[in-house]
Amino acid sequence: MPPHSCAADRWPPVRASRESHVPRYKLIIEYDGGGLAGWQRQENGPSVQAALEDAVFAYCGERAVVEGAGRTDAGVHASAQIGHVDLARGDPAQTVMKAINHHLGKARITVIAAEEAPDDFHARFSAEKRHYRYRILNRGARPALDSGRVWHVVARLNARAMHRAAQHLIGKHDFTTFRAAACQAPSPVKTLDVLSVARRGDEIIVRASARSFLHNQVRAMVGSLRRVGEGKWPEDEIAAALDARDRARCGPTAPACGLTLVGVDY
Amino acid sequence: MPPHSCAADRWPPVRASRESHVPRYKLIIEYDGGGLAGWQRQENGPSVQAALEDAVFAYCGERAVVEGAGRTDAGVHASAQIGHVDLARGDPAQTVMKAINHHLGKARITVIAAEEAPDDFHARFSAEKRHYRYRILNRGARPALDSGRVWHVVARLNARAMHRAAQHLIGKHDFTTFRAAACQAPSPVKTLDVLSVARRGDEIIVRASARSFLHNQVRAMVGSLRRVGEGKWPEDEIAAALDARDRARCGPTAPACGLTLVGVDY
Repeated sequence: MPPHSCAADRWPPVRASRESHVPRYKLIIEYDGGGLAGWQRQENGPSVQAALEDAVFAYCGERAVVEGAGRTDAGVHASAQIGHVDLARGDPAQTVMKAINHHLGKARITVIAAEEAPDDFHARFSAEKRHYRYRILNRGARPALDSGRVWHVVARLNARAMHRAAQHLIGKHDFTTFRAAACQAPSPVKTLDVLSVARRGDEIIVRASARSFLHNQVRAMVGSLRRVGEGKWPEDEIAAALDARDRARCGPTAPACGLTLVGVDY
Repeated sequence: MPPHSCAADRWPPVRASRESHVPRYKLIIEYDGGGLAGWQRQENGPSVQAALEDAVFAYCGERAVVEGAGRTDAGVHASAQIGHVDLARGDPAQTVMKAINHHLGKARITVIAAEEAPDDFHARFSAEKRHYRYRILNRGARPALDSGRVWHVVARLNARAMHRAAQHLIGKHDFTTFRAAACQAPSPVKTLDVLSVARRGDEIIVRASARSFLHNQVRAMVGSLRRVGEGKWPEDEIAAALDARDRARCGPTAPACGLTLVGVDY
């Protein structure tokens, strides 16, 4: 998740003086990332942020920025992305939620909860931990029901070996190996709190939690764990790849469709 | 699930004399019912059966009937529909599965397992129990991630009251009240083994198991249980509706998209 350069990145934020208090709303947002160019407003496709900001404008005529906790990539889903927005109109939070949802129309984006938040709450900068889930469908037949929601891997994966290998990545490390070329984070050092792998029938579920992640970090880690799962890498190859601080040592990045932002702690 | 009138309805089936043994394959089939006109081959839209039979023909040139355990309606999903098909070509079951899946192409239908079955196995007539799951998303915001997979009900539902009411329907009864007008079953008497209702966060899960169901029976029962859940019917209204044997006493039928055929016992 690269930093961007808009004014909201200054922290603490510089807020225009206001004659009256403008309430801040915290939003919990669910979306299907398929067909979307990601969270962030951009030129090359529909984004979650633009859809929300357009819905806000349609509702109250305010051109407000909706800040998000995690700038998910194109195709990545969210069951509980967190956003915040300041709206001078000052309606009750439930009214704001219903109005935004009304104007989102048929987009596969929906605000599932809203509440007023303190002025110093910031969806991105106040976040203390982000939780992602990655789903692998591990069977011969491609998905019908979960098409677009899972990574389909045919070769039988050893989830226990993947889990053991994943534990090499826990803690504070230079994650250069698992970082996208486009990543703009000032430092490749991050602290990974959880990286677990478990099989549930034909599915393999990877859970990852950290204060923050580098761009593509979860998908890069999952792609490398797959190598372990199919027996092409020994379990400690993950540690060697991490130590190498070399993107060339990373396994092929797992596709976006298997990834979901499932929660943010404050 | 109405009976149909093709030759396979004769039981035991009349089989043409054959010079050599024609193997029978049992298939486990997953599909997303959205955009499909249901299981059964028909004039007014793409069906699961037609897609499978066309894929079989493309694979081996045989015009074979694929019989299914449950003739699911338009929009109803399956995570484990069971089918069978006889193919003179006699390939190993894994080859049959892969070839059918190849020819299904991008359809949201997939064969997830296949095995050779005894000649007297019949996907429909040998079935001893069918299991359905119905998902209700019970929150204000419409679904984004599970759009087309759940029934969205805004009014808060009391799942415990729904579960208690559902127990009135367990056992052998005349289910005329919960039967579609189009139902062609010879008798409205069925034995319902399981009808459970449980809340899991914002979701309410209804599970129904029986040897067989009338056409629309699960959706009709769920629609009536919703009335109980929202407090518009007392719990024993379900029993009164059942006893009345009158379709006019049924609550509005729940939509197809929430329903999934999740298993069949033999």
